[in-house]
Formats: sequence, C-alpha cells, structure tokens
Amino acid sequence: MILEKEIEFILAVDALKNVNRRNYNADDSRRENTAEHSWQIIILAQILFPYAKDKANIDLLRVIRMLSIHDLVEIHAGDTFLFDEELMNGKFEREKEAAKKIFGILHEPLRSDFYQLWLEFEDEKTPDAVFACAIDRIMPFILNTHTSAKSWTEADVKERQVRGMLENAIKRASDAMGEAFDILLKKSLDLGLLIKD
Amino acid sequence: MILEKEIEFILAVDALKNVNRRNYNADDSRRENTAEHSWQIIILAQILFPYAKDKANIDLLRVIRMLSIHDLVEIHAGDTFLFDEELMNGKFEREKEAAKKIFGILHEPLRSDFYQLWLEFEDEKTPDAVFACAIDRIMPFILNTHTSAKSWTEADVKERQVRGMLENAIKRASDAMGEAFDILLKKSLDLGLLIKD
Repeated sequence: MILEKEIEFILAVDALKNVNRRNYNADDSRRENTAEHSWQIIILAQILFPYAKDKANIDLLRVIRMLSIHDLVEIHAGDTFLFDEELMNGKFEREKEAAKKIFGILHEPLRSDFYQLWLEFEDEKTPDAVFACAIDRIMPFILNTHTSAKSWTEADVKERQVRGMLENAIKRASDAMGEAFDILLKKSLDLGLLIKD
Repeated sequence: MILEKEIEFILAVDALKNVNRRNYNADDSRRENTAEHSWQIIILAQILFPYAKDKANIDLLRVIRMLSIHDLVEIHAGDTFLFDEELMNGKFEREKEAAKKIFGILHEPLRSDFYQLWLEFEDEKTPDAVFACAIDRIMPFILNTHTSAKSWTEADVKERQVRGMLENAIKRASDAMGEAFDILLKKSLDLGLLIKD
C-alpha cells in the first residue's frame, strides 16, 4: 500500500490525544492532553518569536517542528510531571527508547530527522532548542498563573521548584518572557497558589 | 503588563480545546477536538511534504503556520461539518468575522500576518494553501477509513459528497496522496462505511 508507513505513523501518534498532562486548561474544567498542549505551544512560539534573545540565529520552522514532536515519546513513556522528582529520574533513558520506537515506524531520512530534532530539544543547547524549551516551559506556567493553579496546589509545588525548572530556561531565551515570569510568579505567591520557600 | 496581548491571545485560543469535531480519534473512543486535529495535521504535513507535487514552490513553515491557525475561527463560529450542506452556506462570512475578532487581539504585524495566512488558506490558490488544504482534508479521511467511520455513517455521508469535497483538493496536491485516496475510498465502499452513489 502506498504511504503505508506514513499512515501507520500518523495513526500511531493519534494516541497522544489520550495522554493527559497534570495541568488544566484555561477554563480550569479538565486536564489538557499532550496533543492539545503541543498545538498550543506551536501558536505560542509564533507570537513570542519576536521577543527571542537570539532571534537572528533561530529557525522558526525547526522550533515548531521540535515542539510538534517533542512529546511523542509520551505515547510509550507517559507524561512525567516536571515537579515529580522521583519520576524525573531515568526520564531521559525511558524516553530515548520510546523515541526510537515511535520514530522507527518511519522511513529514512525522516526517522533520523525527527529523532535528531527530539535529541536536540532534550539537550537544550542550540538557539532553536533553547527557545523551544522556554516556550514549552512557560505555557503551563501561563495556564497555572491565570487559573486556580490546580496542578501546583494538588502537588504542593513550591516556589523553589518552579524557579529551578523554569526560571533559567525562560530567562536565557527572552528578556520579555523573563520579565513576565517574574511578575506572574510574584502574583501567584501573593495569591498563595504556590508555596513560598 | 508586559506581553499582555500575547498572553490574552494564547488564553483565548485555549477554547479550541473545547470545540469538538465530527470525526473520531483513531481508537474510535471519542470525537477529536479541533486543537488536537490542528496538531495532528502539523505532523502529517511534515511526513507528506516529500510527496507534494509542487514541493519546490512550497514553504513548509508557511504551511505549518496556516495549519496551526486555520481553525481558530471555530472558537467563535463553531466547527462546520464538511458534509453539512446547509451549514456550509455562509460559512466563509461567519468565519471572516470570527477571524477578525480572534486575530484582532494581537498587535500588528502579527494580527494582519495571521489574518492573511487564514485568508490564503481559505482561498486554496497558492502552492502553500493547496498543500495545506489537502493535508487538512486527508486527515479525517484517514481516520474514517481506519476506524468504523462513525462520522460518515452517523450522517449518511455518500461517496459523491466525499469525492466532491476531497478528491480534487487531494489529487491536485500530490499523486501519492491521490493514489492513497483511491485505494482507501474503494476499501470504505467495499466495507459499506460509505454509501455508494
């Protein structure tokens, strides 16, 4: 059958619609799933791109491609909550196996192309990956700071944890995003949505 | 507040996660929503891009950007089922108002940039828009032909309707996609998932 591998792949990744993340949608009604999240950060990357520090060295197509596939590993490895320190151990090894499995459905060169994009994102070193990671981190932060922050309050997340996982990743990517982070973090602490420590 | 309009926009578009489409996910368990669909076609565009007829004249970044925002109008205008001929009347005018409203949240130049991308997609004339539309049309077709095709059987969709809305849009974009369309359409007719007429 023509396009057999491509169709097998697009049907396999459909499962991402059933992977639930910890954080809630903007209307606080239910947890978002990873497919929805992946779409939303692709929009966010486009509207915050003008504010990227290293804009001249960033290829927006590569950023968006990374964001579109970076969470496909969750189909096999599940979603790992950023603030679950136990589960964060061994996350990379689990996800590397998952990446080989899911991208392995495709023919070359797309198989290696996606796998390398995924590795680059995880490595957070190139200008594209630094910006993509900052976008991925600030999206749930925006949702938490504009809702009742259930994914934080349910897990007793502390200021130190949010700063540790987000602050540097966001601030090295964009001054404007860094400023917004400071303002919104302060608001959440003032409202008691995040535990001060 | 810094990034105020950008944050307002990304929170407003969150509502797309609550717009349900007619067709079902690959596991047939529930209808997909438009945010999930938008993400899935961004993946599909990447894996079918090598098969685009007019590949040399297609800018994949523009295609993906179009796909990411083309359904945002549904936040205000709702999802219009492709085979609901009554609702398809006046769809463009309803959606144009919705586009002005949603993209109007943003500052220039992004406001006009997104609006023009949306118009170009709707117009289906440029190489980018022709390919993007074919991707958008073939995705629910792939889901229907690999499940029990509930969105077709529930609405008594007929072969003539599917051919009318999909065949030319797909075949002018890609020979391989056109071939897959023929094979999968025949399979669905043989299985009685689509009414022959």
